[in-house]
Formats: sequence, C-alpha cells, structure tokens
Amino acid sequence: MTRIGILGYGNLGRGIELAIRQNADMELAAVYTRRDPATVQIETEGVPVKSASDLEAGTEPVDVIIIAGGSATDLPEQTPHFAKLYNVVDSFDTHANIPSHFANVDAAAQEGGHVALISCGWDPGLFSLNRLYANCILPEGADYTFWGKGISQGHSDAIRRIEGVADAKQYTIPVEAALDAVRAGENPQLTTREKHTRECFVVLEEGADAEAVEREIVEMPNYFADYDTTVHFISQEELDRDHAGLPHGGFVLRTGTSATGSPMTIEYSLKLGSNPEFTSSVLVAYARAVARLAAEGATGCKTVFDIAPAYLSAADPADLRARLL
Amino acid sequence: MTRIGILGYGNLGRGIELAIRQNADMELAAVYTRRDPATVQIETEGVPVKSASDLEAGTEPVDVIIIAGGSATDLPEQTPHFAKLYNVVDSFDTHANIPSHFANVDAAAQEGGHVALISCGWDPGLFSLNRLYANCILPEGADYTFWGKGISQGHSDAIRRIEGVADAKQYTIPVEAALDAVRAGENPQLTTREKHTRECFVVLEEGADAEAVEREIVEMPNYFADYDTTVHFISQEELDRDHAGLPHGGFVLRTGTSATGSPMTIEYSLKLGSNPEFTSSVLVAYARAVARLAAEGATGCKTVFDIAPAYLSAADPADLRARLL
Repeated sequence: MTRIGILGYGNLGRGIELAIRQNADMELAAVYTRRDPATVQIETEGVPVKSASDLEAGTEPVDVIIIAGGSATDLPEQTPHFAKLYNVVDSFDTHANIPSHFANVDAAAQEGGHVALISCGWDPGLFSLNRLYANCILPEGADYTFWGKGISQGHSDAIRRIEGVADAKQYTIPVEAALDAVRAGENPQLTTREKHTRECFVVLEEGADAEAVEREIVEMPNYFADYDTTVHFISQEELDRDHAGLPHGGFVLRTGTSATGSPMTIEYSLKLGSNPEFTSSVLVAYARAVARLAAEGATGCKTVFDIAPAYLSAADPADLRARLL
Repeated sequence: MTRIGILGYGNLGRGIELAIRQNADMELAAVYTRRDPATVQIETEGVPVKSASDLEAGTEPVDVIIIAGGSATDLPEQTPHFAKLYNVVDSFDTHANIPSHFANVDAAAQEGGHVALISCGWDPGLFSLNRLYANCILPEGADYTFWGKGISQGHSDAIRRIEGVADAKQYTIPVEAALDAVRAGENPQLTTREKHTRECFVVLEEGADAEAVEREIVEMPNYFADYDTTVHFISQEELDRDHAGLPHGGFVLRTGTSATGSPMTIEYSLKLGSNPEFTSSVLVAYARAVARLAAEGATGCKTVFDIAPAYLSAADPADLRARLL
C-alpha cells in the first residue's frame, strides 16, 4: 500500500481524500492542516487529522505528501520546504513561474534525497503532456489550447472583490467557430477575444449600482477587458441552485503537416463534472509514480514530462501490454 | 545527430525517410532492403541503399534501425533478429501477439545489450498511451476506441483477393450516434455493428458478377459479416482519382466518475491525411527516445508505456517546462 498524506483540506484536499478510495493500492495515512486539527472534519473514519507542524520532524509515516495549497502564496513556500523532508506532489499552476518553482523544489528535493513532482493536474499536467507529445510527432505545426466551458475560480474571485457584489461565478467558454477553424486545419491566428468568451453570474448587494458593477467587470484589465463578456444579475438562490458546481474542461489541438504536406490533426479534450475532483484524480495517480520513483532511488524535482506512463498504473507491465497496448 | 537506418522501403519506409527531414537533430544514415539495392530509388540524395545482409555483422554506422516491415511475417522474425545487433524500433500491430513478440524481442535485446521499442505508431502507440493515462486517472469508467474514417489496408486487401475484383479500397467509418452516446456519458454497451460501418469501393474485372462479389464481401467472416457494409462499384479511373490517399484516424474515449459521482470524459482523436506518414512521424520521435535510452545504458524491450515523454523531444528539459508545461 502507498501511504498518502494530504496537506491542506479545502476542495482539492477533500477531492484527493475521495480519489484515494478509487485506488485499491493506496491509503490515506493522515490529513495535515494549518488550522486547529480539532476543527477539521474529514470524510474518512479512523484517519487522523494532524497539525502541519507535525510534519516538521520528517518522521511522519507517509510515502508521499500531496500538497493541496494555492499557487499564489502556499505552494511557492510549502513545496520546497516539505520536499526536503518527504516525497511530495503539488499542482502549482502559475505557468510563468514554473521555472523558478522547479529550481527551488529541485534544490530542496536533492538536498533531502526525495522525489518532488510539481505542476501536476490537467493544465499544467495532462494538457501539457498532450502539447509535448503532439509537438514531438508533428514538428511542423501549430498549437492551440482552449479552456472551458467551465468555472474560472480566479475570475469569479475577481468579480467578488468588486464593491457591491455579494457573490459571483464566471464561466470561460471556448468560441466554437475558432475551434472549428482549427479543426478544419485553417491554422488561424486567433486573438484572445476570438478564442474565449466570458459569462458572469453576479449577485448584487442590496442597493448596489448594477450598471457600475457591469462596467467595472467588462473593463477589468487582464481579466475581462480583452474578452467579449456577458454579465447576468441573478439572486443568491439562483446562483446556489444553478451554478454550485465546479465543472471545467478544454481542448488541446495541434495541426500540422507531414513532409509531403499531408494534413494531420491531434486533438485532446476533457469534459469534467468537477475540476478539483479531476485534478485530485490526476494527483493521486502521479503520487503512485512518485512513490515508485523514490523506491527506485530517484531524487529531485520532476514534472509529468519526466514520468513514464506505466509508473502511473497499479497494474503489472505485462498486463498493461496485453490489455491496453 | 542521431543516425537512423531504415530497414524496408515501402510506404512506411519512405514515410520515415521524409519524417526524418522534419527533425534537425536526426539524419538518415542508410536504407536497407531485401531487394537488390540497385533497384530501390529513395528520395534523399547522397544516402546509400544497402542490402539488408549488410546489417548482419552488427557494425553499420547507425544509432537506431527503424524496421518498416509488416506485422504478419516480417516483424516477428526481423525485430528479434536485429535487436541482438542494434537498437531497433518497430510498429508491430497485431494486438493479440504483442506479449509473445515482446518476450522474443526482450530476450534478444538483453542478449545484445541493445534497446528495442515495439508496437510504436498510433494504434498500438498513441491510442494505447491515451487508454493507459485515462485508465490511471479514472479508475472507475469505461474505454471506447473508434477507428476512422479511414482506409483499412487489411480489409482492402481482403476484397482484392475475391475472384472478379480488379482493385478495391475499404473505408472504416465510426458510427456518429455511438460516438455521441459515449460522449454524452451514457456508457453504452456497443456491438461491433453499432460502432463502425464499412464502405467499399470496388473495381470489377471485365465480365465479373457484381452481385456475387457484393455478396462475398458483405458475408465475409471477421472482415465484414459483423458490420453494415456498403459496396460501390466504380471504375479504376474513379478509384485512382478519388481514393488514392491513405487517410485514417480515430477516437479514444474514457468516461468515468469521481468518488462523488461527478461525470468525467477524456477524449483523444486523430485526423490523419496519411496513415503511413503519421505512423512514420511517431516512429521517428520514438527513435530519438531509443537512442537516448541506449546512450544512458538501458537495455531490453520497451513499449510507449515505458518511455518518459521528455525523451521524445529534441528540446532541452528546461525549455520544455517553460514553453509547454
């Protein structure tokens, strides 16, 4: 059995806890939290909730810690810190900062003699894998990534910070015409606006100025100004009833040509009922790989690019070849 | 530069020759043939065509030999034979015989201290990879593979063997309604007939009995009897004009649920202007990986399951992380 510790218990931590149940060779050893452990109620009976500080001695009985924190402030600090002490997996998703995060985590993991896997999930993660495979196979071509339809937590949060907004959810939606043009091999040059639209469901506070809120949303730099954005004002009841889930998904395409000019299209897509639950499933499969690599004596920071696919499976290699190859 | 030798010069061998041109870090060292080399005209100036027997001494100046033979009789004999002498890659695609082929090639490669990669291409190959990744991430779910729309060489050959048939091409076509049901998460149990249809374009010999030929096609066991098959009789000119290409493609889907029951769909698809040219591109990318594994001291038989994605790329790992992760 591979013993998994989870550090952090929000949507993602709980998703990891539940994903472990779908894998007979893995067990949840403990949940670690920065809150008072007595205040954290988990789903699994008989598994302890401990203080994150219990990890500091480096002696907790776990094979891999999955760090279920946020990329903005938690992971840049936590992953290097704990990679000195344990094998770790994170879902760091600030693409621009991956090189520096990798360097920090690699130094720590090498120092501690552990394996760390960063930026695991679906983007970065499975989408990255598909970009890499497709680039290697079609050296002459163009890459396209579309996200959605799904809830963007970052954009929903940005709306909620606006004065007069009580609550909000934002959907990122790929533009069907752009997807179709890519699939048709038209190799389009697409602007930000041409690739995605943004749809916002907003609950106003009592007495708030709807027109001002809408203007502030659609003109918000980086988040909305470069997109065609639709704003719907609804009640809290409607938001809770119709927009409670965290669906997401998207598409990775590469179109290219062979040396004789034959057109080729490689497309990968995900349609996810729950973004954090799917990310959790990916993290758990890769935690298995990390435990194995560590058992083989590997050390240092890895990404999904460095891990042979067979390491993700609990099945015997001969069984995989007979059944799935 | 990775020096590639090609053994066999048909559609696939020529595709490999041309695919190498799209990879600046690779060069074609030589083409090896069982025919008289003087009768084989290749596309690349200055590259020798040699006799396959020249390989026997194990001293040819190549890093990897890509064996471009057929799975029925060539590869079961050639791949183990040459894996004793060189690093090799093949596209062995008789799924049921992969375990025994693996065992034979592994023994030979271990004996010779070389790396061999078998069953590389798109199915087996990229489709297998996607079945494996999706199975590891969604342990509770169902797999679906659809092929087409594309030319099946085996089925076209089967028609051409019928008395009275001068020439023929057969398209395998996925049933759109079945694909849609899978995508909708309906988890359908699909019969052979419900998944694919077969469309045949047949040129009759002078005086042949069209009705008898059609009956023999649609009733042919294994090949056509279990499918809804359409037969069109056309002229050789029409066949040559409208059906000269070798397009293919297909879909790998896995639908499943998280531990809380959230539905998830992972879909991978290929749309290929030329089946042998795409297979060639995959073989060349994996030949790069084989050369690297061999340089690291690895030995034995591998499949796509055993190869970390980064090995396929000519780019530096840090560049891959910055650009594609």
